[in-house]
Amino acid sequence: MDYKILGKKDLTPVALKTMSNEDRIQLCAELRDKILNTVSKNGGHLASNLGVIELTVSLLSVFDYARDKIVFDVGHQSYAYKILTGRFEQFDTLRQKGGISGFPRLSESEYDRFDTGHSSTSISAALGMARARDLRKEDNYIVSVIGDGALTGGLAYEAINDAGHSKTRMLIILNDNEMSIDKNVGGLSKYLSKLRYSSGYISAKITTESFLKKLGFFGRGLIRIIIAIKDFFRFLIYRKKPSIFEDLGLIYYGPVDGHDVKSMIKAMDAVKDIKNPVLLHVVTKKGKGYGFAERNPSDYHGVGPFDLVTGVTGGSKPSYTTAFGGAICEIAAQNRNVIAISAAMTQGTGLDTYSMKFPTRFFDCGIAEEHCVTMTGGLAVSGFVPVVAVYSSFLQRAYDEMISDVCFMNSHVVFAIDRAGFVGNDGHTHHGLLDISYLNTMVNMTVLSPRDYKDLRHCLEYAVNKCTGPVAVRYPRGSSPFELTGPLYNEPEECVRPHMSCGSGSDFAIISTGRIASEADKAVEMLKEQGINGIHINLALIKPIPFDELIRMTNGIRNVFTLEEGIISGGFGEACARGFCENKCSCHVYNIAVSDPMIRAASPAEQIAEAGIDAPSVASRIVSVLGEM
Amino acid sequence: MDYKILGKKDLTPVALKTMSNEDRIQLCAELRDKILNTVSKNGGHLASNLGVIELTVSLLSVFDYARDKIVFDVGHQSYAYKILTGRFEQFDTLRQKGGISGFPRLSESEYDRFDTGHSSTSISAALGMARARDLRKEDNYIVSVIGDGALTGGLAYEAINDAGHSKTRMLIILNDNEMSIDKNVGGLSKYLSKLRYSSGYISAKITTESFLKKLGFFGRGLIRIIIAIKDFFRFLIYRKKPSIFEDLGLIYYGPVDGHDVKSMIKAMDAVKDIKNPVLLHVVTKKGKGYGFAERNPSDYHGVGPFDLVTGVTGGSKPSYTTAFGGAICEIAAQNRNVIAISAAMTQGTGLDTYSMKFPTRFFDCGIAEEHCVTMTGGLAVSGFVPVVAVYSSFLQRAYDEMISDVCFMNSHVVFAIDRAGFVGNDGHTHHGLLDISYLNTMVNMTVLSPRDYKDLRHCLEYAVNKCTGPVAVRYPRGSSPFELTGPLYNEPEECVRPHMSCGSGSDFAIISTGRIASEADKAVEMLKEQGINGIHINLALIKPIPFDELIRMTNGIRNVFTLEEGIISGGFGEACARGFCENKCSCHVYNIAVSDPMIRAASPAEQIAEAGIDAPSVASRIVSVLGEM
Repeated sequence: MDYKILGKKDLTPVALKTMSNEDRIQLCAELRDKILNTVSKNGGHLASNLGVIELTVSLLSVFDYARDKIVFDVGHQSYAYKILTGRFEQFDTLRQKGGISGFPRLSESEYDRFDTGHSSTSISAALGMARARDLRKEDNYIVSVIGDGALTGGLAYEAINDAGHSKTRMLIILNDNEMSIDKNVGGLSKYLSKLRYSSGYISAKITTESFLKKLGFFGRGLIRIIIAIKDFFRFLIYRKKPSIFEDLGLIYYGPVDGHDVKSMIKAMDAVKDIKNPVLLHVVTKKGKGYGFAERNPSDYHGVGPFDLVTGVTGGSKPSYTTAFGGAICEIAAQNRNVIAISAAMTQGTGLDTYSMKFPTRFFDCGIAEEHCVTMTGGLAVSGFVPVVAVYSSFLQRAYDEMISDVCFMNSHVVFAIDRAGFVGNDGHTHHGLLDISYLNTMVNMTVLSPRDYKDLRHCLEYAVNKCTGPVAVRYPRGSSPFELTGPLYNEPEECVRPHMSCGSGSDFAIISTGRIASEADKAVEMLKEQGINGIHINLALIKPIPFDELIRMTNGIRNVFTLEEGIISGGFGEACARGFCENKCSCHVYNIAVSDPMIRAASPAEQIAEAGIDAPSVASRIVSVLGEM
Repeated sequence: MDYKILGKKDLTPVALKTMSNEDRIQLCAELRDKILNTVSKNGGHLASNLGVIELTVSLLSVFDYARDKIVFDVGHQSYAYKILTGRFEQFDTLRQKGGISGFPRLSESEYDRFDTGHSSTSISAALGMARARDLRKEDNYIVSVIGDGALTGGLAYEAINDAGHSKTRMLIILNDNEMSIDKNVGGLSKYLSKLRYSSGYISAKITTESFLKKLGFFGRGLIRIIIAIKDFFRFLIYRKKPSIFEDLGLIYYGPVDGHDVKSMIKAMDAVKDIKNPVLLHVVTKKGKGYGFAERNPSDYHGVGPFDLVTGVTGGSKPSYTTAFGGAICEIAAQNRNVIAISAAMTQGTGLDTYSMKFPTRFFDCGIAEEHCVTMTGGLAVSGFVPVVAVYSSFLQRAYDEMISDVCFMNSHVVFAIDRAGFVGNDGHTHHGLLDISYLNTMVNMTVLSPRDYKDLRHCLEYAVNKCTGPVAVRYPRGSSPFELTGPLYNEPEECVRPHMSCGSGSDFAIISTGRIASEADKAVEMLKEQGINGIHINLALIKPIPFDELIRMTNGIRNVFTLEEGIISGGFGEACARGFCENKCSCHVYNIAVSDPMIRAASPAEQIAEAGIDAPSVASRIVSVLGEM
């Protein structure tokens, strides 16, 4: 497609504001084409971005992006905004190493107003910006764009509750597409459906209110009476005042068709100067304009490269996630006390098959990790064995609940922590690098970090059937970028013992955990070629660390190196070093782990190399330490 | 007061359910007397407990506490429940070492159904219990008792959103007293006021509905018509359907007078069998029945021992909190970019004076630590310097927001972390023992742990005026139980340098941080008497650790001991040991810190001793290590 508008130098904030509606429609078509072409090559978030093209063009038609601040919740719907705010040329580098991020980043553009990635933050951030503006007596506009999925997060509610009494001018756009990544759940979702089915009336309300400005005192009064009468008839029909949001102190308008630029511009113009937080309800369709994505928005939420014509994606290769999904079904078939829980990530965490096989023993709590964990605390004290499947970086949200509502009571809850380690192209907001460290602070918590798919399965079985307190099984995103090893052991119970992975000699010992084991194996080989001979021990059970066996296995070795795919502070390595010291070992323990948790988009293998925890880095660190002896 | 009912052996669940209303009123008076007498001696949560006496008696009149499960949110209102469920005799030991806890504890009684202490968890926990009951096809009742303050927490909203579509039978009692610890804030609070002012109507609704059971088909229809007509008139007056909660899928009843046992029992009886989550709105008065507490519920929220007749409490001694409160006022007077933020703890964190002096530069976000932090992220990217004052253990709630919404953007937000360390009689749910470890996992974060009031003031000034990224200043609860030292240094900027606290000799070095320094000083003295001579270095800046200076100061010392008032995993000590190792020091670093974070109620000094981080423990550890050389 030849672009008539996109890529032109004169696409300034003013040009966007003064464009004809025909040009806007053309612009939307070009944006859709650009996004489809780029994401089909690079992978990325497709459905969410296709859904907000008209919304983004409308926002930039009403607001001046150089002056006003638009905060995208989660940020996986900011592609059109990025293209229109100076990043058309770079857009081909989306999510590639050295390229532009798939999420808003202050460091990338002054027009990205807040770094996002995790859900439900935009209203809080925008309220902070609005308060800052008021204190400075400035008058720019602040807009938060939040999906109905993100609105199930308690953080968004807390922000609305605070905004609702603030009397500050800010606009919240509710981008209602009836989806989180999966289909939305919960009372709010049902409520929004009711609001959606009542359209027509509210559009009329906005139209009349936008006239109000032009009318005198008498005219305004008349319009108000008309609105009151409409309210009355509305009551008779729906027996509801329009909105929960008004109860919390916001002014509610909507719903508006989120693919009709003209209506949206009219609505935004009508409400933008109200001196109170306003929520404008916009109804969009995820995947809009691309049939495959419209029909299967979950499949096209975050995708790898795919064929534009056939819609065929790379398909799902075996992965740690599918290994978990298979294992939990088998385990739950045997153990009827197992209940699996997801926080709006049924498909992403591999629980889709389970949820169909065991519908009564499955709960999706919505984007609400905090509630998800506390609710499982309630299930656990009632004698069930809940298995909560959440991504490592999202589980950070429930740090306190894990401690207070599970660990303190020593409740048997299994945390299946997916995306532990580097995640690749989503970048640093999604890395699961902190979990070992934050789990290490939790009393009673057992932590297992399996090496490969089979090890994962054994660890999960051990966690469900052998443990009696809180236990976490952490495993990385996607398929192993490294060669998977053969079976390390035969008895499933062996999963909690350290294993001699390879090597011989006493020049050094590497103690590794998780998939990074394969790099340690390679490092041992590389060093052997240099005449340096040592061993590699891998273990899944990293809390409590089985020191007796580790000390026995490293007996006589003076230099011990720990290796993990997580940050160095508070990690496995530090705990290992302390344990060796407390056990009066005379060896030196050196920690190899991640120092910089903000490594940007790239493949996991590239990120592991950049972090200095790949085989060559490990080998060179060992050489360097031994050389100093 | 002589008790006619309390303390009698036959006060069984059945006896409570079949008691006459006159006896119930007598029982309430006795409970009030018992609680007032005990709390005036032991200290504790007074206002919240006096407010729910009638509510608790009503609950135990309708529900069988041996069979049904009542979950108290936060749990600082469970005294009457504890007395009535078998702990009358032990109640004198409330909050004392070895005594009963001020919060529900599974380990204390089978009738305490869920350990609580942090806010907003009860609906989630109760929903888990209700789901477990349904899966087992049992039929007991599950009740959550939650205050309107706790309802401002997003966790409660997430739970309501999930419960609202669950169709499970559970009862949520909204204990509406218009307060968190301080006066409530936010849109919801205003909304609840509107509901309160509409009383009368709903009581009638419950009365009529409880009649419904006894009526035939025709009667029921008639009642429904009457209710519909009432609804219609209600609409004309209030232009509102009764409740936000109904929008989220709950069934709402109320408000009911929370000090009228008869009405509450009637209401609970009417709604308990509804096969859907029901919210019963009960209006209570904090401090009910004790004039001083009724008039000043914030002052009598958590109190030390006080005089029953005069209401005179110990008064406020100088404390780390008051030192912070004074310092922030002085700093904000100089630096107009400072904005202070509280999460429903204006008084508790010492911000009351500040909030009156600088009302436009103060925000109370409600019990909503997550939003609180993300909102400050918005203020910070707009160029202000927010100072967020939150208790250490409550800040755990915002772990992810601190990382994602502040640290990743390297925003200059100052976290004033009160209650860091052992907290005394509130017990383990309130200890601030994890903050050093969780702050250590945060990129860009600077951490300061001052020793005394003056040091705190300097650290705060440094954090506000010298730092440019996220920075935490952590300090303990209350007055120092230890002797406060004289000035360590003269220039405020010196606060970030390690200081030689006492001692000479090279047998050992102790490196301490925070108030626990005084124990290290004492240990040095004790060891000197045994002929063992070493030094004590104290430092406030523990992230990043100034290794250059530390290594210089410990030069030639083979055995280095770290000492901190926090858990050992991921703490200052482990980081110190790693740093010495990375810097190729040949010394051994031994960590002295807290191994058991669940040390129970006692005085902070007792807890410090129990944890093995007091002077005698430190001295004996050093003797033991040196003896093995």
